[in-house]
Amino acid sequence: MNTQSLNATESSTIILFGATGDLARRKLFPALFRLFKRGILGEKFAVLGVARKDLSTSAFQQLVLDSLKEFGHLSGSEQTEWDKFAGHLDYASADLTQGSTYQNIKERAEQMESKFGLQGNRIFYLSIAPGLFGPVTIHIKDGELRSAKGWNRLVIEKPFGRDFHSAQELNDTISQVFREEEIYRIDHYLGKEMVQNIEVIRFANAFFEPLWNNRYISNVQITSSETVGVEERAGYYEKSGALRDMVQNHMLQMVMMMAMEPPSRLETEAIRDEKVKVLRSLRRYKQEEVAAHVVRGQYVAGSIKGEQVVGYREEPSVSPASMTETFVSAKLFIDNFRWAGVPFYIRTGKRMPVKATEILVQFKSLPNILYFNKHGNLEPNLLSIRIYPQEGICFQLNAKKPGTDGILAPIAMDFCQNCEAGFNSPEAYERLIQDCLEGDSTFFTRWDEVSLAWKFVDPISKAWADEISELQPYPAGTWGPQQSNLMLQQDDTKWWPVHGTKEEEANKVMVY
Amino acid sequence: MNTQSLNATESSTIILFGATGDLARRKLFPALFRLFKRGILGEKFAVLGVARKDLSTSAFQQLVLDSLKEFGHLSGSEQTEWDKFAGHLDYASADLTQGSTYQNIKERAEQMESKFGLQGNRIFYLSIAPGLFGPVTIHIKDGELRSAKGWNRLVIEKPFGRDFHSAQELNDTISQVFREEEIYRIDHYLGKEMVQNIEVIRFANAFFEPLWNNRYISNVQITSSETVGVEERAGYYEKSGALRDMVQNHMLQMVMMMAMEPPSRLETEAIRDEKVKVLRSLRRYKQEEVAAHVVRGQYVAGSIKGEQVVGYREEPSVSPASMTETFVSAKLFIDNFRWAGVPFYIRTGKRMPVKATEILVQFKSLPNILYFNKHGNLEPNLLSIRIYPQEGICFQLNAKKPGTDGILAPIAMDFCQNCEAGFNSPEAYERLIQDCLEGDSTFFTRWDEVSLAWKFVDPISKAWADEISELQPYPAGTWGPQQSNLMLQQDDTKWWPVHGTKEEEANKVMVY
Repeated sequence: MNTQSLNATESSTIILFGATGDLARRKLFPALFRLFKRGILGEKFAVLGVARKDLSTSAFQQLVLDSLKEFGHLSGSEQTEWDKFAGHLDYASADLTQGSTYQNIKERAEQMESKFGLQGNRIFYLSIAPGLFGPVTIHIKDGELRSAKGWNRLVIEKPFGRDFHSAQELNDTISQVFREEEIYRIDHYLGKEMVQNIEVIRFANAFFEPLWNNRYISNVQITSSETVGVEERAGYYEKSGALRDMVQNHMLQMVMMMAMEPPSRLETEAIRDEKVKVLRSLRRYKQEEVAAHVVRGQYVAGSIKGEQVVGYREEPSVSPASMTETFVSAKLFIDNFRWAGVPFYIRTGKRMPVKATEILVQFKSLPNILYFNKHGNLEPNLLSIRIYPQEGICFQLNAKKPGTDGILAPIAMDFCQNCEAGFNSPEAYERLIQDCLEGDSTFFTRWDEVSLAWKFVDPISKAWADEISELQPYPAGTWGPQQSNLMLQQDDTKWWPVHGTKEEEANKVMVY
Repeated sequence: MNTQSLNATESSTIILFGATGDLARRKLFPALFRLFKRGILGEKFAVLGVARKDLSTSAFQQLVLDSLKEFGHLSGSEQTEWDKFAGHLDYASADLTQGSTYQNIKERAEQMESKFGLQGNRIFYLSIAPGLFGPVTIHIKDGELRSAKGWNRLVIEKPFGRDFHSAQELNDTISQVFREEEIYRIDHYLGKEMVQNIEVIRFANAFFEPLWNNRYISNVQITSSETVGVEERAGYYEKSGALRDMVQNHMLQMVMMMAMEPPSRLETEAIRDEKVKVLRSLRRYKQEEVAAHVVRGQYVAGSIKGEQVVGYREEPSVSPASMTETFVSAKLFIDNFRWAGVPFYIRTGKRMPVKATEILVQFKSLPNILYFNKHGNLEPNLLSIRIYPQEGICFQLNAKKPGTDGILAPIAMDFCQNCEAGFNSPEAYERLIQDCLEGDSTFFTRWDEVSLAWKFVDPISKAWADEISELQPYPAGTWGPQQSNLMLQQDDTKWWPVHGTKEEEANKVMVY
């Protein structure tokens, strides 16, 4: 981790492959513009957009301007800043499958570097179809786009493969061109403020370390829910599903942040070493164990906030017989000294009642019979780390109900970081692009993380492909199939409601 | 502890000695009226006021009504309830030093018991000059006021003696009349909601017990401050001082609640046994050790909230050469396995900047050099239990400053129990009278607590009488003499500001 964060970074050229795409428009341009406004990009930088479409430089600048406006990242008073920023943008039209196209990209990049007096540091940002990750990287080598004068960094979006085998192939390919320390694999959950805060909360408070283990923690629950359905991503999603789209990367990353041992130092590789150790201790399920530990669901028609929505199989571009899961919940075990016996429950899905990302730690209950828990009805202590939409921390404790003698009631102690009006945490992409500019890959995923995550996920995909466990339907607007609730009930616990939702709703068993 | 609290208690006659006094008017009548309104007193009770003044029954009822109105405990809509309540009030004029007077009291009590069909349970509430505690108790015996049919309970206000010797004499006297389990020694701090909450917070949350010891706690700070000066209590206060008035009882009670071991059961004697054990482990200071561990101060002229106030020696009825302390702070040690090496700092005083009672737990800091504490400037974790005026709990933790990489900032997580408009915790006296009616003496002080508290305090008084340690002046409106701050500075800590006050003010050294 780099604590220098308010100074301008070294001069650099960002070559953005896929510059007319959705991610670029929604996230990357706004992130770059904010970094420019904050002075992080300084005056010495260039952004070269690359895509198939035939666009002039000014048409590209207009496209960037339009997306800033469309997504609310440009206010009327920022015209001067925009004008300055726009001068750093250029565009190269390219057919990325054709080697000949890279000569043009290279020349444009060199022109910009000479125009702005840049040192030749280059970021190759691949925001393109996953099938192109490998070929484009090879073309970068063959077209000699790597800079000889400065550093070279490859930023690569998800998905990194669709199983261990394809991920390894991809990795072998890009490794011909970039060394591991030059590769920045994006997992944008790692750019979220509160996900980054997990290590601070754990390691900057003397308070937590003594409690952070299987003597005091009963279980950990990680939820990442969406209200949207598959939308325009059906083509991709039909082949991916929630397991590959969410669990292999985001959900396991949050598990790692929660479960990792204190690193030897707070430095990139030391931290990533500890994260990888979590995956090494993560129990892998044999095919016949999958059904008992992993629930897969698919939404059927239902209603969200009073609005009727269709089922997944009725969505455009989805097969009417689709077996793609839109929901996964699972019980994980990390078989090491700290966590033996503590389930990590994860769940993620589309068409849930609310959009939320939250991690909850349920502490062990007081022994029944002891003190106030005589009737075993005392609520356990809870710590929740709220990642989205609220960013904050909440404790639930027990206290005396005022005016009574020995009647207890749970109380909540809240800290909310983004509740104040006008407060904006940096967006994940802003955070991550800044890290990449600074050469800090702490919050990017290393190859061994990716490969171990696939090794955990693959047997589950395989079991599902072999239909060893059933695909469970759940009505849109519910928290998934009842099997997800039953899995926790069997362990004498339950999904605690995410912030802002009601207990009754959180565990209502929806029988389809 | 009795969990039955919303049912009416057994029928009883409350004989209130000192019924025209300040405490009765400010606290006891309002408490009784609220207990009546809540249905705790039921229909079967009688209150017999006893005092020197010659008053008719109706004049006494008027006096009670006036005090309810004066202190804001009677709203316009409560006339019907008041009328019912007033019917249970009677009065007996008495010269408490004369044995003959008790015949009259007895007859009036019997008349009321027969009128209301009471079973003969009697509470003798001594809200009178301490010099009368012994004689009145003997007269209760000689006048045969103890009921033969029901239970008898003696409620006795502070001070219980002025040193161990006089307390023992008093106890020997009242023990001729009442058994220990019939004696309810009032310490009204034990009636405060948040003081009672300490044992709940500690023993109803799996969270705290692992942290509640010298491995994780650096020190405990207990503050009880007043803004008022000596007011009309100068006569009493000149002989008492802050040590006897506050430390021997209230401050040590809070120390006991914080430090006690988990009791064998949550029952009165089991809890009091554990509290007493704290006092047994409390290190007693030899005369020559007093100066290093206890600071005594006396306020001189100064200003509070912009208003000029005179010094203690200029107050009416105070000797111009008075050596009475109006401020005490002390460093205590509880020499047992749990607390060895953890200072309990206490401070109490008059003419402080704010009126507040608060307990703060400072957790040990992370080792310097470790992680985020590399420069040793990370704030320690703090837990504060706010007793007055806010009732609540607050944690201070460290988190990442949003938008930065590795810059930390302390965050506060608050729970406030009485912040909502219209919320009223029961007053301490309401709570304690109810406990006494229910025969629950958990939150009253047992003789061994009183005696051990005096044994701790006596050598300090003695050292001061012998002028072995200096009386330090402090300007009204400050947190006491600078020695109080220096005592903590020497231990590499400081008084943390009480809720609502500023850091700079909390530790500003006022050189007189």
